[in-house]
Amino acid sequence: MTVLYKADPVRGALWAERFAQLAPNVPFRVWPDIGDPTAVRYLVAWQPGDLALTLPNLEVVFSVGAGVDQLDLSQIPAHLPVVRMLEPGIVEGMVEYVTEAVLAIHRDLFDYGLQQRARVWQPMPLRAAASRRIGVLGLGMLGRSVLERLRLFGFACAGWSRSKHELEGIDCYAGEAGLDELLARADILICLLPLTDATRGLLSRRVFDMLPRGASLVHVGRGPQLVGADLLDALQRGQIHSAVLDVTDPEPLPADHPLWAQPRVRITPHIASATRPEPAVDAVLENLRRYRSGERMNGLIDRTRGY
Amino acid sequence: MTVLYKADPVRGALWAERFAQLAPNVPFRVWPDIGDPTAVRYLVAWQPGDLALTLPNLEVVFSVGAGVDQLDLSQIPAHLPVVRMLEPGIVEGMVEYVTEAVLAIHRDLFDYGLQQRARVWQPMPLRAAASRRIGVLGLGMLGRSVLERLRLFGFACAGWSRSKHELEGIDCYAGEAGLDELLARADILICLLPLTDATRGLLSRRVFDMLPRGASLVHVGRGPQLVGADLLDALQRGQIHSAVLDVTDPEPLPADHPLWAQPRVRITPHIASATRPEPAVDAVLENLRRYRSGERMNGLIDRTRGY
Repeated sequence: MTVLYKADPVRGALWAERFAQLAPNVPFRVWPDIGDPTAVRYLVAWQPGDLALTLPNLEVVFSVGAGVDQLDLSQIPAHLPVVRMLEPGIVEGMVEYVTEAVLAIHRDLFDYGLQQRARVWQPMPLRAAASRRIGVLGLGMLGRSVLERLRLFGFACAGWSRSKHELEGIDCYAGEAGLDELLARADILICLLPLTDATRGLLSRRVFDMLPRGASLVHVGRGPQLVGADLLDALQRGQIHSAVLDVTDPEPLPADHPLWAQPRVRITPHIASATRPEPAVDAVLENLRRYRSGERMNGLIDRTRGY
Repeated sequence: MTVLYKADPVRGALWAERFAQLAPNVPFRVWPDIGDPTAVRYLVAWQPGDLALTLPNLEVVFSVGAGVDQLDLSQIPAHLPVVRMLEPGIVEGMVEYVTEAVLAIHRDLFDYGLQQRARVWQPMPLRAAASRRIGVLGLGMLGRSVLERLRLFGFACAGWSRSKHELEGIDCYAGEAGLDELLARADILICLLPLTDATRGLLSRRVFDMLPRGASLVHVGRGPQLVGADLLDALQRGQIHSAVLDVTDPEPLPADHPLWAQPRVRITPHIASATRPEPAVDAVLENLRRYRSGERMNGLIDRTRGY
């Protein structure tokens, strides 16, 4: 019952170490050193390509990331369960990143940065957090954790997802009509949606124009959800005041892309959150235990929805 | 029993409005419209100058700020109680500002900003919050509130003050020897000290060189606590990696000051936190009630310590 790992090899060495510590009886191999292909029962991967098709006794595919859009599901046999990574490190990183971005926007730090470049000392009026309306798209573990932290600062928090949620202290919207309602009241819009056919290109002119004038965007979903040309246009028109982008399309963002040089756009290279080897191994081991005892695994995806 | 206000007149109008609402029987005047000087019992001021000496029946001086260093205590008769402003808006603003600054440093946003200018897409290793050591100088209401919020992110938190404190989940240091201990373990040093003779010039080469190499500074105390030339030198030597400065000496910082153009220094124009008129009026009214009923006022300063 070998576990085969195919992702970043530097992290792979850390995974191997922790597996050896916590589950010394489970053979753990780092691709391309796969050993006997018939022995591999579990595949832990970022982009497995067609590897799953070549492992005859494979039982489960684990993504090392919080999303599974980087997997080509057509290359994973239809009967295999696919599991995404849910571990505290991913949540911690995302909460840190989004909290920082929201506070930076809330406290006018883009404009103060421009003033600093011009060596201008000019205070701007301070707004209470309670008057700043936050809207989070996506109410999975990440979206909920981000909203819980932002609430502590007193922001007026709302969230949207495809299906209806109930969250304490958060105004929850759902479905098509709910999306328009959320957008109309989002001074700071945060995208934490999975990439699906329904969310590809969602962050477009239509969405930007439904936001209050001068709203800001924090995009920590997936690059192809954002129509870059529409964002540039909305920034130029003043409809969008500022944006924090941790994901782009493509990645890396080419050096000649106009988003790099926008004065109120911050770009980071997809670093908001990353799976940390230690809790990730713990999460996989817990799921292996669940799988073998017939319990439902954490993060099991619905292959028809795609997340 | 007139209350006389001498500070920003735009805010003064808001104070007047709220006083009229909540305490219609208390005459409230905005300087220079002082009316009968003998009727003034309470002075609410930022920089009163010698005004307190000209009001024969004055009973209490209230600062509109969290500090009192901007008052010239020698121009306030020695028998008068002096009270600083403690209201939730000051705390909220400071917690927002410092949390943002710490997260920005923790998540390498100065370096990602420099990469963005160079159009470079290059992820850096992500550190867990638990491995980042925060040290807060000053454990008054602001310092304690900041530490409580930072703890939620999982940072390794410590605080220092002149006298010993006990705070849950925070390593507390006190006195001269304790300061050196705190500095030796502060990856991010936050200054929230009041300005006194003992803290003037404290943030100097000696302090910087006691920090771990590559530490960062968040300065939200008072400008004269920082020796600017020593900070520039520590940045150049790499001893200090980055700094967020909300206070400078002098303020405004002159346009030709070299700190403006440091690549890993952020300067904001003393906006971390500001008294908000509504809760500030509530705080003054509560203190008037306490004063008249013989209770101790919140924020009463010890004129021998200076804070």
